[in-house]
Amino acid sequence: MNDTPEVAVLRYGHRPGRDDRMTTHVGLTARALGADRVIFPDNAGQSQETVEDITERFGGPFEVELTGQLDATIREWEGSVVHLTMYGERVQDVTGDVRETHREEALLIVVGGEKVPFEVYEEADWNVGVTNQPHSEVAGLAVFLDRLFEGSELERAWKDADQRVIPQERGKRVVDG
Amino acid sequence: MNDTPEVAVLRYGHRPGRDDRMTTHVGLTARALGADRVIFPDNAGQSQETVEDITERFGGPFEVELTGQLDATIREWEGSVVHLTMYGERVQDVTGDVRETHREEALLIVVGGEKVPFEVYEEADWNVGVTNQPHSEVAGLAVFLDRLFEGSELERAWKDADQRVIPQERGKRVVDG
Repeated sequence: MNDTPEVAVLRYGHRPGRDDRMTTHVGLTARALGADRVIFPDNAGQSQETVEDITERFGGPFEVELTGQLDATIREWEGSVVHLTMYGERVQDVTGDVRETHREEALLIVVGGEKVPFEVYEEADWNVGVTNQPHSEVAGLAVFLDRLFEGSELERAWKDADQRVIPQERGKRVVDG
Repeated sequence: MNDTPEVAVLRYGHRPGRDDRMTTHVGLTARALGADRVIFPDNAGQSQETVEDITERFGGPFEVELTGQLDATIREWEGSVVHLTMYGERVQDVTGDVRETHREEALLIVVGGEKVPFEVYEEADWNVGVTNQPHSEVAGLAVFLDRLFEGSELERAWKDADQRVIPQERGKRVVDG
């Protein structure tokens, strides 16, 4: 976002059909809350299409990629890696360190879908729990991004949008561009 | 949560099958991030079971209810009502006012599923957009609760839990109670 090093979100695992909406929501949340890019498993082409369609209509920049190499993407990432998991360290304890590191280098945020292998816990620089309670990978990602960017993502300007929503006390207002 | 007036989350609309996971995630996110209760439409019994099962295992207090009267629940709510919508006022502009009001009275947070009728926009004291971008009702709820409670929800203690996750740098640690 803006002139800071890249933030990419990696959706680890996807079951076509069953996970379509969750994977799409991971992508849309990544885009709306300040990430630069989302990487989906290569069987999540339908979610890719949806997120690209939203980006075309509501603006970018935001990239959506597919990969057949989830593990290699993590292992070879040039920068630091956060893995969001309910078993990890408390978000309120470690986000400051992550933010500090992100001033200097790109950040990959891994969001689990299906069972995440132990190697991911080992490869990650931080395993982070947005609470140590079971809830939602989408909710965890959202809170983590909002805290990482300290709310500045809410002020983001969008380029090349076909339409724009104007905040309203009541009802809906959408304008061109 | 704690000694403050109640916060309840109302899931507005549910399509069995298609929405099961999203509705469940709304409920689990409400529980994990400091709400006291979630109200589902009466066709979401499966999501109710899942959220109650998690509460039994990981602790409470947290209530899950079904209603056939979504509109009446909003209309007759004794307290104030927030409706989360991408068309609403900016979360960063209005959450302070909501927090102030919640010191005195119960708060109902309406989270849309299927198309939300215009009456809901009118009944709500605040229509609030967690960004004015399309993303995820689960993500919007999560960020809103974290901001409403200013992070204090992350320190919540759980009662009557069968198991508890201990935050770890690597791996998983779960203990009894």
